[in-house]
This record gives sequence, C-alpha cells and structure tokens, in this order.
Amino acid sequence: MSFHVIFQPSGRRGLISAEKSLLEASQELGVDIEAPCGGAKVCGKCKVKIEEGYFEKFGLDSQMSHLSSLTEEEKRMLRPEELGDNYRLACCAKVQGDILVFVPEESRGAKQIVLETGTDRSFQLNPAVKKYYVELDPATLEDHRDDFIRLREALKKKFTDLNDEITIDYPVLLALPDVIRKSGWKATVTLWNNREIIQVEPGVVENAYGIAIDIGTTTLAAYLCNLATGEVLNRDSMMNPQVRYGEDVLSRITYAMMQEDGLDKMHRAIVEGINTMTARMTQAKGLSPEQVAEMVLVFNTAMHHIALNIHPQYVGRAPFTPALRNSADIKARDLGIKIAPGGNVHCLPIEAGFVGPDNVAVLIAEEPYKQDAMMLIIDIGTNGEIDFGNKEHLLSTSCATGPALEGAQIKFGMRAAPGAIERIKIDPSSLEPRFKVIGEEDWYHAEQKPSAKGICGSGIIDGVAELFKSGIIEPSGRFNMKLSSPRIRRGADNKPEYVLAWSQETSLGTDITITQGDVRAVQLAKSALYVGAKILMKKRGVDHVDSITLAGAFGSYIDKESALVIGMFPDCPLDKVVAVGNAAGDGAKLALLDTGKRVEAQEAANFVQFVETAVEPDFQVQFADAMYFPHAKDPFPHIQHILDAVPKTSKKAV
Amino acid sequence: MSFHVIFQPSGRRGLISAEKSLLEASQELGVDIEAPCGGAKVCGKCKVKIEEGYFEKFGLDSQMSHLSSLTEEEKRMLRPEELGDNYRLACCAKVQGDILVFVPEESRGAKQIVLETGTDRSFQLNPAVKKYYVELDPATLEDHRDDFIRLREALKKKFTDLNDEITIDYPVLLALPDVIRKSGWKATVTLWNNREIIQVEPGVVENAYGIAIDIGTTTLAAYLCNLATGEVLNRDSMMNPQVRYGEDVLSRITYAMMQEDGLDKMHRAIVEGINTMTARMTQAKGLSPEQVAEMVLVFNTAMHHIALNIHPQYVGRAPFTPALRNSADIKARDLGIKIAPGGNVHCLPIEAGFVGPDNVAVLIAEEPYKQDAMMLIIDIGTNGEIDFGNKEHLLSTSCATGPALEGAQIKFGMRAAPGAIERIKIDPSSLEPRFKVIGEEDWYHAEQKPSAKGICGSGIIDGVAELFKSGIIEPSGRFNMKLSSPRIRRGADNKPEYVLAWSQETSLGTDITITQGDVRAVQLAKSALYVGAKILMKKRGVDHVDSITLAGAFGSYIDKESALVIGMFPDCPLDKVVAVGNAAGDGAKLALLDTGKRVEAQEAANFVQFVETAVEPDFQVQFADAMYFPHAKDPFPHIQHILDAVPKTSKKAV
Repeated sequence: MSFHVIFQPSGRRGLISAEKSLLEASQELGVDIEAPCGGAKVCGKCKVKIEEGYFEKFGLDSQMSHLSSLTEEEKRMLRPEELGDNYRLACCAKVQGDILVFVPEESRGAKQIVLETGTDRSFQLNPAVKKYYVELDPATLEDHRDDFIRLREALKKKFTDLNDEITIDYPVLLALPDVIRKSGWKATVTLWNNREIIQVEPGVVENAYGIAIDIGTTTLAAYLCNLATGEVLNRDSMMNPQVRYGEDVLSRITYAMMQEDGLDKMHRAIVEGINTMTARMTQAKGLSPEQVAEMVLVFNTAMHHIALNIHPQYVGRAPFTPALRNSADIKARDLGIKIAPGGNVHCLPIEAGFVGPDNVAVLIAEEPYKQDAMMLIIDIGTNGEIDFGNKEHLLSTSCATGPALEGAQIKFGMRAAPGAIERIKIDPSSLEPRFKVIGEEDWYHAEQKPSAKGICGSGIIDGVAELFKSGIIEPSGRFNMKLSSPRIRRGADNKPEYVLAWSQETSLGTDITITQGDVRAVQLAKSALYVGAKILMKKRGVDHVDSITLAGAFGSYIDKESALVIGMFPDCPLDKVVAVGNAAGDGAKLALLDTGKRVEAQEAANFVQFVETAVEPDFQVQFADAMYFPHAKDPFPHIQHILDAVPKTSKKAV
Repeated sequence: MSFHVIFQPSGRRGLISAEKSLLEASQELGVDIEAPCGGAKVCGKCKVKIEEGYFEKFGLDSQMSHLSSLTEEEKRMLRPEELGDNYRLACCAKVQGDILVFVPEESRGAKQIVLETGTDRSFQLNPAVKKYYVELDPATLEDHRDDFIRLREALKKKFTDLNDEITIDYPVLLALPDVIRKSGWKATVTLWNNREIIQVEPGVVENAYGIAIDIGTTTLAAYLCNLATGEVLNRDSMMNPQVRYGEDVLSRITYAMMQEDGLDKMHRAIVEGINTMTARMTQAKGLSPEQVAEMVLVFNTAMHHIALNIHPQYVGRAPFTPALRNSADIKARDLGIKIAPGGNVHCLPIEAGFVGPDNVAVLIAEEPYKQDAMMLIIDIGTNGEIDFGNKEHLLSTSCATGPALEGAQIKFGMRAAPGAIERIKIDPSSLEPRFKVIGEEDWYHAEQKPSAKGICGSGIIDGVAELFKSGIIEPSGRFNMKLSSPRIRRGADNKPEYVLAWSQETSLGTDITITQGDVRAVQLAKSALYVGAKILMKKRGVDHVDSITLAGAFGSYIDKESALVIGMFPDCPLDKVVAVGNAAGDGAKLALLDTGKRVEAQEAANFVQFVETAVEPDFQVQFADAMYFPHAKDPFPHIQHILDAVPKTSKKAV
C-alpha cells in the first residue's frame, strides 16, 4: 500500500510505501532534509512540520491517521511548542496515509551550498542530472507494455511532477531489459533535465557524479563533483596536450589550416587529455568513468571549436564568426569522451569573437550583471579577457597580452614552478635586490642553497615595479644608465640589464638578469590590459572603477601593489583589488551543479556587449600612453605616495 | 526586394525575391505545381488562381500591382472564363508584390501518388525529410550571429511556417562553416520533421533520397526512393546475412543467448547487409550513400531487437516483453548504418509479442482499420501473421507455420528458384501428373530438357491439393494405398509417397516425390494458419470473412484455389482472395514517403488487439480439426463443387 506524500516548499511529490519514514520518503523523492546522524534518531535535526490544513487544497484525504504515533525520541528532542505546532522528526514519523510535509529552512539540506574554492560562492544545488529510484510492475502475459513504457510509467506514478515527454537515450535502451530484470524490477533512473533517461542502474544508487573542466590554452583544470551533494570530490590538472601543436591560440588555428589532419590530431589530443583526467579522478575515488553522468566544459572560442571538432579557421580571421555561439549539449560519445554511455557534455555559450565560454563562466561566478558597483574583471591567461560594467550595462573585450605575464618571452622567464623567483624587492638606496624562490620557505639569504633558475610571471611584475620604484628604469621603461651600481650594466648584446642574482646565487651557474627587452615585453602586455579596460570604461561612460577582480591562477600570485604601480589596470583602492583564483573553473562547476546557472550563462552571453578594442580610432595613441609606468597621463591617486617616493632624477628622465 | 507569397490550400508561405515567377516561388517554398514542360511556357498546365480577396485576412497590402501583366502565352492558353476569374499561368506571372495564390486540384503535383507496386496504393507525399534552399547574409564584423543562428534565421525568414525550435545535428554543425562559405552563402538545408537540420549542402539541391527496408527472417528487400517525387528509383534484395546463425527466429534468439558475442555478430551482419544494399542501390543511380537522408525499417519483433542491437532473449520467452514497442527514430550512425551523417532510421512500432513492425507495415498498406468489410490478412513468411476485423475492432496474432510453405522440411523442397516445380496438376482418372518448372516457359513435356530439381512452396501446395482432389490422399492426409498406380508406392523408409517426376524427367537423376511426411508438414502449417484465423473470427464474433488478403511474396505465387482446397484459410469467394505481394515492404515505403502513415502506424499498433492463440482453451481440438482437408467440420460452400468431385472412395476412408 502506498500514499501520496508532498514536501513543501519544494513541491516534490510522489507515492510512498506505507511505514516508510518521512526521511526515507524525502530521499526517494529527492528532497534534501538535513540528517547528520543518518536517521539514527540521535541528532534531532530533521524537524518537519505536518501541514494537515493544506490537505483539502491538494484533494487528499485528511480524515485518517497519516503518521505513526509520537516516539520517545521525538518527545525528548522536540520542544513543547514544536510538539504543539505539529512538528515531527522525519526519521521517526512513518507514513500511514496521505501527507503534506513542510520542511523548515533550518532542516533543509539543500540550503545555499558553498563551493569549496578560494572564494566563497553560494548556489542552489540543482544539477541537470538527477537519480530516481523506482520499483516496476513485473512483466506479465496480460501486460503488453514494453520495458521503456513500464519504466516511464513507474517514474511518473511515483514522481508526479515528471511528464510524458520523457525519452530514453539509445544506448541506455540496449541495457534496459537486463538491468531491470536482474535487479528484481528495482532500478535507479538517471534523468537529464527531467526529459531524457541517460542511465538505468540496478537497485538503489544514491550518488550521481559530474565533471567540470576548464580547458585553458596552456592548462586543463578538472573537478569531479558529487551531484547529489554539491561536493568537489577530486581535482586534477595537466598541460593541454595540444601545446605540442602550438603555444597559443593563433598558432593552433594555423596548425589546423596548414596540416591536413591538424584539427583531427588536436581534437583527439584534447579528448585523450579529458579521458585521462576523468579516469584518474574517478579511480582515485573508487569510481568508474561510467558513473560520471555529465560533463561541463569551458574554454576560449578556438579551444571550444577544436574540442568539438569544428574547424577553427573562421574564428581565427575577420569577421571571427563562430559556428555555434549558444550553449550546447552534445552526447559525450559523439565527441569520444568516455563517461556514462548516455551522458551529455554541456558547453557554455560563446560571447563573441575570442571571448568564449570561459569568460561566460567567469561572469556567472562573479555575477557583475547583478551588481550596482562598477566591476572590472581581468582574466589573465595566454589571452586576456576583460569585463567591465554592472547590472545596467556590461562590456567585454579580449586583448593579446602575449605570454610575457606567464614568464615566456622573458630572458630568464619560466613557469611558476620550484626554482622560479616569485617575489622581488629592491632597496632604493643601495639598489641591491632581495628575492624569494618557489620551493624555499624564506627569502634568499647567504646560507640558503642557491636554487633560483629563472623568473616567473609574478616575479617579473615585482621586478619591473621595483626597478621603476627605485629609479633604475624610467617611467618610459628605459634603463637609467647614469646610476652607479655593479648590477646595472650592459649585457652581451650591449643592451641594458639589471643583475637580479649573481651566478653563485643561482642553480644555473650564470647571472639572472632583467633585461631592457623583458621590460618592453611587460610594457606591451600591461598596456594591452590597461587600454582594454580604459576603452570599456569610456564606452560605459565612467571614469573610475569600484573594484577590480583578478581571475585566473596568475592573478592570485601577483603582488597587487606591484601590478598597480606598473599600471596593469586603472587606479583603484588596493583593498578593492581581489584575486579570485580560477573563476572560469568555478563557473564551470557552478553550471555543473546548478542548471539555473546555465540559464544565467546564456542570458549573460546575450547581455554582455562585445567590444573590438583594436578597431577603436585612438587605439594606437592610447596604447603608447599606457606603455608608461604607471601611465603617461592618467592619475593614480591610490598609489600617489609610492609614486612620490620614486627618486626625482629618474622622473625627469622621461 | 522580396514579397510575401502564400500558396493555398497547402498554406506554405515565404518571402520571394521580386520578378521571380510563381512557379519558381512554388518550387522554393516546396509547393508542388504540375509543370510538365518545366516552365517553358508551352504546356499550360500550371494554372493558378490569384485570390486577392483574401489579402486583408492575411494583413497584406492589396493596393499595389502584385504580378507582372498577362503574357501572350497566357492569353492563348487560358480560357476566357479563366482569365475573367483571375487565373494565371504560374510560369508566366512574376511576383511584384505580396500575393495569395490558390493552386486548383488539377494543377497540384502532389495529388495522390500511386506507389509502384503490384497493388496500387495511393498516398500523400509528405516525407519527414525535406530540402529548403536558402541564401544567407554573409558574416560581417558588425553581425555577431554564429553560423547556425544565421542559417536558422534565413530559414525562418523565407519559410515562415518553420519555427524557432529547429536544432542542428552535431555532425552537420561540424561541416556547416565550410559549406556555407565555399558556396557563397547559398545552401540547401535538409530538415527532418521540420525540427532538426540533418544535412547542409552547397547551392541548390533538389532531390532528397530515402531507403525503405523490409527485414525478413530469410530475405531483405530494399527500396531506394526519391523523397521529392515519391518515385521508387531502385530496389535490391539479398538473403538475410543472419541466416548463417540460425534459420528461424527462435534459433537466432538461442544463438544470441548461447554465444557471448552472438548478438553482436548478428547485429553487425544485418548492418553490413543494409550497408551493402544501400551502396549498391545508390551507386547504380549515380548517387552516394551520403545522399540518403532517412531510412525506414520494418521487421518482426526479434529481428527488430537484433537490428537495433537490443538483446532478444526476453522477447523469446514468456511473457515476450519487448524493450521498446513504440516507433523510434535512431541516428543511423549509432547503429553503424552508413547514410547521411545526420540521417535517422525510423522503426515502425511493435504491436505485441512476435507481431512486429512488419505487420504494422502490412496494416498501413492495407488499411483494414478504415474498412467496414471484415478483412482477413495473412502474411505468410517463416512466421505467419494474421489480422482480422474492420474499422470497429481489429485483432491480430502470429502463428508458427514453420518453413514448410517456403519449401523447407519438405523432402524435395527448395526455394522458389530456377529448377523448382511451382505448378502441379494430377489427372483424377489416370493419376498422372503434369508440372511446371521455374525457368521454363511451358509445362513440362517430353521434348523439354529435364530441369526439375525440387518443389517450391507453391508447388507443394498445388501438389497436396491435387493429391487430395484426385483421391490419392484422404481428407485426413493419409495416402490411399489401395489405389493402383506405379506412382503411389512406399519409399525407402517404407512410408507412402507419390512420384511426381521420374528420375529421367529431373536434373537430379533421382525421382522427385511428395511423401507422407511432406503432406503432414503442410497440414501442420495450414492448420496453424486456419486456427489462427478462426480464433480471431470467434473473438471478433463473426462467422465469415468478406475478403482475404495474402501478403508476402509467397502469397503471390500460390494457386488460390489450391490453398482454399487444402483449407489454408476459411471459406471465402475466390474472387475476394487477393495476393498483394510484399505489403510489409510497401508499408515501409509508405512510411518513408508520408509521415501521416507513421502516425497511422502508431495508432494502428495501439488499436489492434493482440491475441495469443496458443493459450486458447480449445486450441488443441481446433488444431486437430483443421488438420483435415479442407477441415473436419467447417463448410466450404465456395469450393463445394470441387469437393463434390473428389472420388467417393477416398471420402469414406476418413
């Protein structure tokens, strides 16, 4: 015998066998009630309110006894006023009739969930993929229904909010007859967006799993999540295996155009990378890739096309038109991605041009479209993306920062790995430096084993800022060769350079220097970012920013003051400059865990206005001005005290 | 400049460039106007009526001149009353404003089309797959639409009855950017059910192609059709390659259960067969398999499951539950079938048990659910299917006729191929036979080169009927050994037999006989069919049939009188017994060419009531009675004169 049970405020409803507890009913119907003791009747957290008054409204019978009588545990753990107000413990009260249950805020498991990242991001847990446990009528000679209809009707009977449009994916159909018979007509159905059956497993299966991946030009970052709890179970990362076909986006587009099978090779490389990370992450948690029911991918536009096996040639040249802009769901098997046979891959939408789903992911993580304040978001990778605005009007652009900020095109540049100099200070009187190496606890000192072998991105920004602050380089970027220090010299190519570490202080056996060329590379990169931000501000009609968000791993490592001193972005109070880590990866996770965020992503992609900064008429002039430290004309009141302390001589040398 | 053009009564509408003729407009919008001269202005067949009065109703501007003025050709070819009634020739009148056109019945190309088969079957040409020619706005820097949205909007703008729900299949998206650019932004889109883009080809492509296949247990019959005209362009057939894994349905189900990879082997075998026929048929017509945009398959339930790679074990044993009963559309690529990358395979629905999509195909070809008369439809294959009833109530069953009627399990049985005796007459006085061999013009005579090497199904039915009519076998099937003839003898196994051809009259060098065992095999088969029909008649509450339809190639070859004399089916006027050839194949073609027939198929599958005859309480008694020629008890008034002529002695010998 079964009874109707409705949970409010979620509205989830279904038929529940008599004598099951309300906690079991809530689990069957996918309502999350907090029960830290797991139903052992000891924690008293699963309080619910029985709403008999609502019964007539729902056409249910309110005359009979609906629940088993109060237990000793309930009498002990519920307060007298709760008992008088029809409160029960969900683990104790057993279904004996139709019942309407209200789950109060404090008992709801699926409150706001906080994503486990550097930044706290709260969201509603509402994944596209959900599991439903059903018991089917066994087939008989009199019952001519097929297996699929039998399953669908069992689903609809129990979960009355499901409709008749539910379909079944073809590979799932193939396995269906065996699964339901070998499990005694008891199965757990995985539904995608409440409309397609993408998996059927024998018996009760509680957890569904999903993977979110941020496909960067250089690095892949993957996250394995429990879709039933929102928890991030595991993470993995690897170098983008496409790197061997080209360091940056343009060289990969060129490779696809020059080589007959170039696209195919790069597509297979990224799919292999995805499959490798999927296998590693699931295996480490005792799972199999087939238990992963959905995957969300974010990437820039070119990586998007290559990952989907779409030729990127037309996104690589004007008018930069993508084949597909909207968000898309593609069967993983069509891409060669090995998860559940019926599983889908969800790609967030492209904004425009090179501003791809990864920037949309940053937007849904940071939500500038919900803010009054003017937010500037800078996502620094091999390609830089900038968003500026608020809930009234939001603009975005991409800019070719080049790889200097990641340590490439720098004479002693290297990735942020052990041995990289990541922090630099220069004494303005002695012009002597101090530096810190990744892998060492302390700043370098004489007793330390020399381990420095290069300079990473945050180190080069510190270095250039310190050279400027100590007057060694002028606001124009030129070395002031009049200063007297053995560290300021001309290199083998007769170009000025600053010796950061003497050969005996390195593991290279050679001096590590910052050269005039390095300074120029940083100037080009920072100018591109600055001009991008300035043009968006101008378009938006404002002359200041309220806050600056630095997205991307790089943003987390740089010294904000150094970045502002060299003029990487417009002036802003330093405490309003926040590094949020891999916001694109966070956005991918959010889209995986909350379908509402997918709707938001599509809306954001349509809402944000793409600006092609390079075609602005005064772009060249602006770019030249922005080459200066921090800028040829724009004031920087929030670091004026630092600028004032820069030795006067160098100021005159402009 | 473009104008709105609407064609009635089809309601097709769209924007048409100025100065295009109405005939061109009709072609662009997919309205079929008869124009045998191809628009050369010489045939005068493309008469249309201009319905200006309707303009306001459609909110169109009726003030301006909508068409070019009357041409000399029109003045010559249109009658005065037609000219006065606003008739024009579609090839002459050019669009110069919004216009509403009525296409009179006699000018409509897509009238009723007659399927080129033995039986005339008329239908509305309305395939699931249609082609639409569009011209796209070229991409520009100012226009941020992606290729897909650009294409969809061009489709919607031109064909205003298409909606916004149109999606694009993933493999088609991959090819899209190149196709539209290399063809100068002009493309032909193939739409499936007006909701999914399954192909995009450069420039103008007029014809769409489809293939219908009847997958019999023993034989595959395939038809290549032009979906734009309804014409059958080519046909092909081959032995079902699964035959090597088992002769009949049950042995194949057993093979799938006994062999680890049995299902996989049989699935791949049928897919290879389908691909082979597809390649052969298209190549012969100068086409490629990729030009085939859809495939319709019919089969019995077990063949359905194996072809779809679903394990058939559960349809092979009680309660015979299929995995999927409803009609289904599956991507050809998911099955390994090689047609257009985005093409679908449509499978007609299963009725119940072994009564599969092939019987549903017979129903939509014969339409008993539209008749008042009581129709009995018998589809004779390795498995027999019987339908009985009319538009009020329709019943169906399947019966295990065994392979005797196809010449198997008969001592000298063979398939209907050259060398097979297909017709037999026995002189009731001399008891001497005459026979006709497939491949020979005349009945066998002394001057003919002896070519007989066996007896096919129609021959064995003739033979048994003639043995009975001449008194050589009794109504019970027993040989009357009292008759004196060298042809009536005991064989090597001491069992009675009749010598049909002496060794010198055959190409075997041995006598060809009809044995007591052969007669028993025919009795079992005909009794199964007869009892099936009788049980359906009883369930339906009627004691007569108005007509009998013999479906299947076999039904076309047998002698109707012989079949009735042995009691293969209940009594019926002989002129109401019709052989319709491969009705299942015809039904598959109809479903390919007319989506209305797919709806009808699903309705028919739900409407027809499946009867499990073997579980009827008096099945054994009925079966025993039906073993007699023509039947132990039932009267056969329509062949009474033949029965009366059977020699009395044999009648007494019952």
